[in-house]
Amino acid sequence: MIMDLEGVGGEFDLIDHILRNGKDGLGGGGTGEDGSGVVVGTGDDAAVMELGSDRYILATTDMMVEGDHFNLDWYSPHQVGRKAVESNVSDIVAMGGWPTYMLVSVCLKPDMDPDVLKGVYRGLYDGCDTHGVALVGGDTTHGPITVINVALLGEVEKNRLCLRKGARPGDLIFVSGPTGGSAAGLDILRSGKDGPVEDHLNPRCNPDAGREASRFVRAMIDVSDGIASEVRHLANQAKLGARVYKDRIPLDNSAVLAGGVLGKDPARYALSGGEDYELVAAVSPDDRERAVDLGWVEIGQFTNKAGEYFLVDDEGETPLPGGYDHFKN
Amino acid sequence: MIMDLEGVGGEFDLIDHILRNGKDGLGGGGTGEDGSGVVVGTGDDAAVMELGSDRYILATTDMMVEGDHFNLDWYSPHQVGRKAVESNVSDIVAMGGWPTYMLVSVCLKPDMDPDVLKGVYRGLYDGCDTHGVALVGGDTTHGPITVINVALLGEVEKNRLCLRKGARPGDLIFVSGPTGGSAAGLDILRSGKDGPVEDHLNPRCNPDAGREASRFVRAMIDVSDGIASEVRHLANQAKLGARVYKDRIPLDNSAVLAGGVLGKDPARYALSGGEDYELVAAVSPDDRERAVDLGWVEIGQFTNKAGEYFLVDDEGETPLPGGYDHFKN
Repeated sequence: MIMDLEGVGGEFDLIDHILRNGKDGLGGGGTGEDGSGVVVGTGDDAAVMELGSDRYILATTDMMVEGDHFNLDWYSPHQVGRKAVESNVSDIVAMGGWPTYMLVSVCLKPDMDPDVLKGVYRGLYDGCDTHGVALVGGDTTHGPITVINVALLGEVEKNRLCLRKGARPGDLIFVSGPTGGSAAGLDILRSGKDGPVEDHLNPRCNPDAGREASRFVRAMIDVSDGIASEVRHLANQAKLGARVYKDRIPLDNSAVLAGGVLGKDPARYALSGGEDYELVAAVSPDDRERAVDLGWVEIGQFTNKAGEYFLVDDEGETPLPGGYDHFKN
Repeated sequence: MIMDLEGVGGEFDLIDHILRNGKDGLGGGGTGEDGSGVVVGTGDDAAVMELGSDRYILATTDMMVEGDHFNLDWYSPHQVGRKAVESNVSDIVAMGGWPTYMLVSVCLKPDMDPDVLKGVYRGLYDGCDTHGVALVGGDTTHGPITVINVALLGEVEKNRLCLRKGARPGDLIFVSGPTGGSAAGLDILRSGKDGPVEDHLNPRCNPDAGREASRFVRAMIDVSDGIASEVRHLANQAKLGARVYKDRIPLDNSAVLAGGVLGKDPARYALSGGEDYELVAAVSPDDRERAVDLGWVEIGQFTNKAGEYFLVDDEGETPLPGGYDHFKN
């Protein structure tokens, strides 16, 4: 994801600020984006550049660090590689486009088992095969921890580009499929109890949902940090508010099961979890049927009350919670 | 650089093998490069993809790890950022092209000083400004070491694409400018003695030399691991041999000075050093004057004796040494 880091930590805010403001954010001159074909730089799921045709180029990158993004006690090497592909493809899909070319950089521990390395690459190639992506290059180096960086290119027709901005007051909030399973699986793994972990270890993005929806949605984002966080992003970009109906949120069965095992509200996994790689979109009321026909689920509505985000349930309205914090949870 | 790792370490050879053979290298089916516009995948300075016009897209990535590629005791943060840009631009230049868009991923230590981070980004933006590159996005995460990954796109006219392969027997070996300064500076820093370190801390690539030479050279590569290594790459790709005349190798003044301080042969810095970001190319004897007019220097010739690489000096012929090994030196 591209700088999807509001409210996370000091350095993250700083880099966010720097990238949004270019070199000006550092007190220098120039922005690094001097108009040479950059349509959208930072601040969306992927960058967008002119291709000199009826399409744009899309580009995104994700860095996965052992211990934070994955843990080889829980993940197989194949799952690590596959997840790296899915998280990047999800960003391209959230722009309405399709992925094309991938570069992979890896930092290896000197004592790394070659079978682990092979497993990671099997996962990378399997993900590329699934999504029609060509792995065209990379870089390899050594260090004290394992780091995998994927940079992924994609394309999208100009008239189907879906940005985070574009929602209008009264637009409906739709989600492309069940959520909460990834966060629920992580919670199970951390607890040491028996329960469903598959949705955390094998997350899959939803390219067909994104491509079809790109014909009519007004704004779209993938679920990296939980539905609450993504709804806030879409609302914030359009200076709107939002109301989300808790009981309408489609939940993975695994989230429900994990909630039972751990005594937690499964909707919280969907709202403030992450890495489900489903999509959240703003849909005009006129297009409600189109979204429903694709299997998307309506969970709320954008309002003209900028910055006012509510979760609605039987007991009334409460503030919409925040997103997943990779460093506090 | 793209998998420029022959003879380095077990894992590097393994990844090299995997990327050259795609998924087949792992015993599975498919290659991840299923013909969808990939002109050159791994094995050159950058990947090359169809753009649907008279140009190709180029893509390269480099991961820099604290302690291996840079050391904040020696480098200023600005120099770290700048070097990350230069090393990637150099790969695009070595294809005959020009850089366009950059994505940056960083892994930060939790206690990182914000001023260090700002310095790194200032270096990144200054490098982007110099080379006309737009920094369009990135990713940020935390970990126990600082890691910076740059992914850089570029373009090149189809008729000016310069691959590593393409040299013919009798072609002249040219280098674009003085070399050895970066390795000499590193040697000085490691020795703790006074001497010239600028060429190591502030390496600059040579875009104009590459763009002009792309009109006529038959093969080209940037000097990442020393002239000897790059000559071997060009020869190997064309199943040729090579003779390099030691006394003709253009040396940075700093390499000569450092050799004096440390009692070492300065030509060794040029031959087996690295990160000079000058270019080595195969030039037809018919184009000798064109290369000379650009300020390039003739240092040898490719032969039809595949795999026979010689260094020639007053005392006769000796085997051409190997390249820089990031893990042994």
